[in-house]
Amino acid sequence: MHVNNNEFELIELAFRQHVPHISANTSVTNGDDASVHRIPEGFEWVTSVDVSLAGVHWPDDFPLALAADRAVCAALSDLAAMGATATNVWVAAMATDASALNALGQGVADACNRHGVELSGGDTVKSSNNGLSVTVAGLIPNGDAMRRNQARVGESLWVVGLLGMSALSLEQWQLGQREAEQIRYFARIEPLLSQGVMLRQLGVRSCIDISDGLLQDAHHLAKASGCGLQISLESLPFWQSLSTALGHEKATKVLLSGGEDYALLFSAPTDLPGLEPLQAVKIGTVIEGAGIHVTFAEQTINIPTQGFDHFA
Amino acid sequence: MHVNNNEFELIELAFRQHVPHISANTSVTNGDDASVHRIPEGFEWVTSVDVSLAGVHWPDDFPLALAADRAVCAALSDLAAMGATATNVWVAAMATDASALNALGQGVADACNRHGVELSGGDTVKSSNNGLSVTVAGLIPNGDAMRRNQARVGESLWVVGLLGMSALSLEQWQLGQREAEQIRYFARIEPLLSQGVMLRQLGVRSCIDISDGLLQDAHHLAKASGCGLQISLESLPFWQSLSTALGHEKATKVLLSGGEDYALLFSAPTDLPGLEPLQAVKIGTVIEGAGIHVTFAEQTINIPTQGFDHFA
Repeated sequence: MHVNNNEFELIELAFRQHVPHISANTSVTNGDDASVHRIPEGFEWVTSVDVSLAGVHWPDDFPLALAADRAVCAALSDLAAMGATATNVWVAAMATDASALNALGQGVADACNRHGVELSGGDTVKSSNNGLSVTVAGLIPNGDAMRRNQARVGESLWVVGLLGMSALSLEQWQLGQREAEQIRYFARIEPLLSQGVMLRQLGVRSCIDISDGLLQDAHHLAKASGCGLQISLESLPFWQSLSTALGHEKATKVLLSGGEDYALLFSAPTDLPGLEPLQAVKIGTVIEGAGIHVTFAEQTINIPTQGFDHFA
Repeated sequence: MHVNNNEFELIELAFRQHVPHISANTSVTNGDDASVHRIPEGFEWVTSVDVSLAGVHWPDDFPLALAADRAVCAALSDLAAMGATATNVWVAAMATDASALNALGQGVADACNRHGVELSGGDTVKSSNNGLSVTVAGLIPNGDAMRRNQARVGESLWVVGLLGMSALSLEQWQLGQREAEQIRYFARIEPLLSQGVMLRQLGVRSCIDISDGLLQDAHHLAKASGCGLQISLESLPFWQSLSTALGHEKATKVLLSGGEDYALLFSAPTDLPGLEPLQAVKIGTVIEGAGIHVTFAEQTINIPTQGFDHFA
């Protein structure tokens, strides 16, 4: 880590003191050149990195502490998709000034403490823009990780969690709405960590988290698994009420392409025992071929691929 | 990871295809929600995160591929300081456009391939500034990590590697010098990974890499270990020739406060067998008390603390 005296104390002040939890697997944490972790026998170590920037992943006028909380939770969602138990977080914080750094630190601490994960290290740099790169890690029994490439023809396609709500919530923010109830789905991401573990324990082999919108992430699952996916629009969570409230076209758009809900998309046999407590919603079928086929009233509908391309 | 079709292909194009190496400990790599790693019995997993931004960690007109190479190597240096064997790298790339992303990808690949580490995943985002957050990981035998807090009074203080050369090299760049020989110490960081492993195997318990300048990092070592450090100016590597070439004042400044050389600073008994092949230079002694005491001709000299504080 690149720190000097003052910066070192700033990191302590902004980040470390707020996250008391130490993971059982940690030998050396925060404050050395690196952290050291002992992996229990029979387990593998699962890691992912996610970067989030002001103006890209959240509006410039969005509170930084909430933004940092979101950034950590978005990264943890990748562990949920693998079925891992989350244990450790490292944060590289880019901040315009010390006050921004403190706000980022508060949000990181809130997310870490809520999910019982350790803040194991990081780095800080003064930047023209605020942002965070979040590294997360966790444990999974040997060979049990849920993958993108294990969907099999004939399985059903399921969703746990909501779709489109974050996009609608963000729209409310952009319209000037500041009441917590109106913006809560954008302000607070809930990574479905316990649901991911339960799915893995039920024997689910193929899962992905929906960060870029259902169509995009379904496409990743289909491509990696070498199959196609059929999705029934009217089977999506809250289709009827959203369609009534927003109209058919907008409901279709937010459900299929609204990102950042961090629901879990997975495939499994239709009769898989034990799914009930998860409130999983069956939205379609894994089929031969390739691509995503969306149907409404059993007719295929034409949906232009939509999603967020940072470099388009 | 937040990727869509085009972005996914861009990552493949910019990063993955250039790093063929897969670590022996990897079960799932790049392309899923997270990577999965099996830790051999008797080993611990060592991780660190470093962020590097254009205009802060390298001049805005410095070639991006070289900058990305440096960023990866700077992060790997933290593993060297622990005595770990480097195995895996994850990169969160922030790029102003696709061409910048490609340059960053090339530099990341160069560094990974030179050091035989796997590129296990990452994320990309379009940004107003170019930069990278680099997460590195490696293996270390259980309980063997070299720490900052293990220096003991009476041990000698040693350096492996050069001091001040990166600062002088950067100065040449800023003066318009573009010949490889003049700027090589800034353009190419060599993390002292094999030296770190050798030090650990020799029984060295306390080590830190010098990223922010000798004084700053010596301060970290002293503070963590609860001791003081005495450093003899004239014992620093190439003191005599640098002093002759640059004058006493400037030589003092670059040797004590020039950062980014990524030498290793460690404490060990003066007669520790096996140090010779490492060309370690004895620069001082671990003493009772606190702080850094620099001497010249056996007289204590007063050195203002210098170092780079991102938030000063």
